Amino acid sequence: MTAKIRIGIVGYGNLGRGVESAIAQNPDMALVAVFTRRDPASVALLDSGIPVVGLDVIADYRDKVDVMILCGGSKSDLPEQGPKMASLFTTVDSFDTHARIPEYFAAVDAAATKGGNVALISVGWDPGLFSLNRLFGEAILPQGETYTFWGKGVSQGHSDAIRRIPGVKAAVQYTVPLQSAVERVRSGTQPVLSTREKHRRDCFVVLQEGADADAVRNAIVTMPDYFADYDTTVAFITEDELAHDHSGMPHGGFVIRSGKTGRNTVQTIEYSLALESNPEFTSSVLVAYARAACRMRRQGQKGARSVYDVAPGLLSPKSAEELRKALL
Amino acid sequence: MTAKIRIGIVGYGNLGRGVESAIAQNPDMALVAVFTRRDPASVALLDSGIPVVGLDVIADYRDKVDVMILCGGSKSDLPEQGPKMASLFTTVDSFDTHARIPEYFAAVDAAATKGGNVALISVGWDPGLFSLNRLFGEAILPQGETYTFWGKGVSQGHSDAIRRIPGVKAAVQYTVPLQSAVERVRSGTQPVLSTREKHRRDCFVVLQEGADADAVRNAIVTMPDYFADYDTTVAFITEDELAHDHSGMPHGGFVIRSGKTGRNTVQTIEYSLALESNPEFTSSVLVAYARAACRMRRQGQKGARSVYDVAPGLLSPKSAEELRKALL
Repeated sequence: MTAKIRIGIVGYGNLGRGVESAIAQNPDMALVAVFTRRDPASVALLDSGIPVVGLDVIADYRDKVDVMILCGGSKSDLPEQGPKMASLFTTVDSFDTHARIPEYFAAVDAAATKGGNVALISVGWDPGLFSLNRLFGEAILPQGETYTFWGKGVSQGHSDAIRRIPGVKAAVQYTVPLQSAVERVRSGTQPVLSTREKHRRDCFVVLQEGADADAVRNAIVTMPDYFADYDTTVAFITEDELAHDHSGMPHGGFVIRSGKTGRNTVQTIEYSLALESNPEFTSSVLVAYARAACRMRRQGQKGARSVYDVAPGLLSPKSAEELRKALL
Repeated sequence: MTAKIRIGIVGYGNLGRGVESAIAQNPDMALVAVFTRRDPASVALLDSGIPVVGLDVIADYRDKVDVMILCGGSKSDLPEQGPKMASLFTTVDSFDTHARIPEYFAAVDAAATKGGNVALISVGWDPGLFSLNRLFGEAILPQGETYTFWGKGVSQGHSDAIRRIPGVKAAVQYTVPLQSAVERVRSGTQPVLSTREKHRRDCFVVLQEGADADAVRNAIVTMPDYFADYDTTVAFITEDELAHDHSGMPHGGFVIRSGKTGRNTVQTIEYSLALESNPEFTSSVLVAYARAACRMRRQGQKGARSVYDVAPGLLSPKSAEELRKALL
């Protein structure tokens, strides 16, 4: 019996709570503490036996934690926390601002290398598992097209954009992949699909008292980047309906590689996720990759890494021999 | 511009031909030669510019080939060729006798370690990509069940079993996944499925003149291990019909992980393949892994490996930096 992998959680929102749950499903891991910027006394964990500690004293835990799982947001938390934590600990995070990954990687890599740690960035399902499937698809079928569809699921970014419109009290936006487009891709014809052909956007909006529904609807459907290029539906609902029918955080989607081999032979690889809870699933991915990060550190690696650098066997608690025998 | 990866093919059947085609789709690779036990003059390649060489002189190519792709069968070719070739070359093979993987791995590992080579065994889609997805599924969702469905596709083993029945001239057997079972799995109820509930077996048989159709049908549907535990259909067809309607080698299937996170949240990961040609697809997987094997050897690794040991980034011709920027 080897010692358990000792995990710390930085930040305790939906993702941090999901990580706490996921660790409880993995007998080879133990949660040491949750670190927070808030008053630790104000944070109630699922398991009240785990200490909640102020982020200001996290450096005291350098010998007590094997991997820190960073559960902050990509917009403001991780750009600052990622490098800082990687200088102190082996880390895993879910940085998901695709366009900024190169600069984030560079900053974390410098800090992790200097600190002698491994920092696994952009772990989750997209970026993460979907990224892996995009890579497998094009490496195995170099002549082909890759299609990523998202949903049906809640997009926080789009929901936030609606909430900023004057007159809106609350809102949830679902990204919906269009089945007609998915079927065209599966048929092997490698269609060129416009933004509008791939996804629809369904908005559920609670208005402030006296707000002009038509003006809000118009502000949504004409919003550049977010909605203008899509067929967008807007439904006005009550606050109770929002709480009752739209409080879940489902998500998912498809990565499809449609390729050709030999003389025009159609080959299709499809990966899909159907998630009742996006944050709980992302957390489960983070925890599996925390196991890999710990092992990579023990192998003597240091610096930033992505899912592309992680041999899949490192994710499993089983030994290489067991894996070959049981799963290969 | 770095030098191309120099590939050799050992054995030129459906798989070898598929590898030849796949290499032509990968500009960073070059096919050096095809090696055969047959009279080289009797083997016609797709590209007549590539030399065909007798297997007896393959050792002369140690400095001319970076990776040998072994395209022999798992029953009699690979158990002998795998270790022999791994002592001389870095190799990739598609050894697919699941029960014998541990002993095959041990034999190849000893030879590859002694020879200072990397030997990637059991590469393809099952074992191979399906194995990876079984691992990802249980590592990410430890509380759950994994389901593998095969088909619709031709099973050589079952087709051969029918051909051995007296009175049978030719036969093709399709393994068909039952949609009802796939849907039950997707629903998240984690059903316990019997063999009969998961797959059906459809047989197309050409009888020898004067053969007793009822006797043949009965011999098929009652055959232990192969058919007795399944709902099996038997259709008698002409030789022309067999050649016209059943000469393709389609295959595919699904790996579905149905798991739970948090408080009973259902999460589903599904991986599926729809292949018009099973050997051409397997070949494409072998070629992508040949790229990885070459890189692992250059990193200084030696010994046998499986897909579980290969960091996904090694499969792509793109650099780690390009991958992070373009695909992550």
